[in-house]
Amino acid sequence: MSRKDNGQSSNGKRARADEASVERPSVGSVTLSDVARLAGVGTTTVSRALNHPDQVAQKTLKKVNQAIELTGYVPNQIAGALASRRSHLIAAIIPSISNTVYAETIKHFSKILRDSGYQVLLGETDYLEDQEETLVRTVLSRKPDGIFFIGINHTAICRRQLLVANIPVVETWDLTKTPLDMVVGFSHEEVGKAIAEYLLEKKISRVGSIWALDHRAQLRRKGFLETLAFHGINSKYVCDVSVPTNFGQGREGLTRLINEGFNGGAVVCSSDTIAHGVLAEAQTRGLRVPEEMAVTGFGDQTFAPFTNPSLTTVKFDRELIGRRAAEVLLARINDEKIEEYIIDVGFEIIERKST
Amino acid sequence: MSRKDNGQSSNGKRARADEASVERPSVGSVTLSDVARLAGVGTTTVSRALNHPDQVAQKTLKKVNQAIELTGYVPNQIAGALASRRSHLIAAIIPSISNTVYAETIKHFSKILRDSGYQVLLGETDYLEDQEETLVRTVLSRKPDGIFFIGINHTAICRRQLLVANIPVVETWDLTKTPLDMVVGFSHEEVGKAIAEYLLEKKISRVGSIWALDHRAQLRRKGFLETLAFHGINSKYVCDVSVPTNFGQGREGLTRLINEGFNGGAVVCSSDTIAHGVLAEAQTRGLRVPEEMAVTGFGDQTFAPFTNPSLTTVKFDRELIGRRAAEVLLARINDEKIEEYIIDVGFEIIERKST
Repeated sequence: MSRKDNGQSSNGKRARADEASVERPSVGSVTLSDVARLAGVGTTTVSRALNHPDQVAQKTLKKVNQAIELTGYVPNQIAGALASRRSHLIAAIIPSISNTVYAETIKHFSKILRDSGYQVLLGETDYLEDQEETLVRTVLSRKPDGIFFIGINHTAICRRQLLVANIPVVETWDLTKTPLDMVVGFSHEEVGKAIAEYLLEKKISRVGSIWALDHRAQLRRKGFLETLAFHGINSKYVCDVSVPTNFGQGREGLTRLINEGFNGGAVVCSSDTIAHGVLAEAQTRGLRVPEEMAVTGFGDQTFAPFTNPSLTTVKFDRELIGRRAAEVLLARINDEKIEEYIIDVGFEIIERKST
Repeated sequence: MSRKDNGQSSNGKRARADEASVERPSVGSVTLSDVARLAGVGTTTVSRALNHPDQVAQKTLKKVNQAIELTGYVPNQIAGALASRRSHLIAAIIPSISNTVYAETIKHFSKILRDSGYQVLLGETDYLEDQEETLVRTVLSRKPDGIFFIGINHTAICRRQLLVANIPVVETWDLTKTPLDMVVGFSHEEVGKAIAEYLLEKKISRVGSIWALDHRAQLRRKGFLETLAFHGINSKYVCDVSVPTNFGQGREGLTRLINEGFNGGAVVCSSDTIAHGVLAEAQTRGLRVPEEMAVTGFGDQTFAPFTNPSLTTVKFDRELIGRRAAEVLLARINDEKIEEYIIDVGFEIIERKST
């Protein structure tokens, strides 16, 4: 059953040129003077109503706002940016738009900035440092008032450009003693270590694991395997999967581990999405969780409490990262004193029924 | 087990003011002249190397690029925008950053624009028309070269501001005979109708359904229930859930339908995410899918082929919507002829094992 037509069909051609000339004045036709004339005030008053409404009488303000609404006038912020040396733009450079775990951080970061009169210019690196370098060069040409990154790994050229640009930068989702400017996050190696210690406390020593090929997951992998090795456990059932991760990779990942000889114990996954797939694959194979196989995820996504069985995972406050990052960035932009340049938001293991 | 410290702790205070003065020149300190002096050429040559590299000798270009890299110089696009009356910014107004179904459209839309030298200013409406109106007013002040919307519903004031702004607009994810400018999408009422007809063909007449409270899901709901009613089926097991939808709502939704008396047949869901939750709840209750209960989703998300059993759903080309929207927007910006202002990308029902 198909109703697809490959984007070619249409049921409405329109005579655009004619309509446009009737419906719309030409670009930039509504000016500050038009608003002033309609409101019956001077242009200085309109300007003041826009920039310092508290200095304008209520009645005048109402007239000006009505005129603005009627004309559809919008002030030109480009000219404003040149005059004030402030663009009121913030660039946000993220690995992937389609990964929901980042979305919540961006959402709260953007909200605070928007409420303070800033707008967010979005760039997606697809987890590639070269692409990040290109993006940073392009966004810097907009003279943003600040830059937000998910991640702390940048090319040497990218780092230099940011230092020369001399604007506030906040890196997030990881920690480093040498941030470009400020960093808000938590230690991924410590997360890996904590998961290993959690399994050791539970006396689980047969361990398989599935890791995404991104910097932070690989740091967790390192902390995890090193801690196991420190306790004399050499876990050879390890597989890496491409980013962004998906549900299917969990099913395929468990299949790979089993084909390589893994036969129960625990499967540690670098994301809840992968862990969800592992649970589904275990069910299909009749492997009982947690009796025959424990499963852990990372991220405490919205579905984690609802999987079958519910998923043990690592929780960290994605919203807090976004909020703190916005706060320190705004403080730096406004030349306020910053107490801490390295902010550790911590994490915790949430124990549920899959372990 | 907790390593959380509520975002207050830190292990690195730094003497910022001192460092900054050593590491970084002041704002705007690297100019075109600095680059020219370092490269040993005139400022006109640097300007040409930036804007028309094909008109500059290879050897000169190399010297200029080395100087740019060394100094970290970035051209000021704000000044450029005022001179050319082009901002090279595109505003994208979307309901939710954290909903992955939109992410794929935005991703491909942004990629094409980025490759053409544009950047995307992102705005999130949280599915609220008032918030959209505020956002549109703010982004218009940046003089974007075009605006992209997911959705066709806007307030009267928002519509007027867009018409007055006289810039290319592309609305997506739905169809209308009266777009603001151009629209790329498919008919949600037709989707609802198609799902109903699909169930009727399968002789399934006991039907429950779960719908998100957003414009498009409610249009599908309308098409679905009207088609059932037309065939004499009055489905009273209908529940609405808040947006954005999540896995847990599927589990709760099925529980609600069953508590209201629904006892098998088909459960139609307005998103794959809800359907995934319904499958999990069915499993917990020992309800066999599809023998005792068929389940359908919408969106054909990456996990849909991997659920247990695999999910019957409605597929439409999210990537194509993003690409076509970018193409028509660029064409309009470049004053090229547009063949179709209303582009229907269609949809299809993907039959899997859940029905």
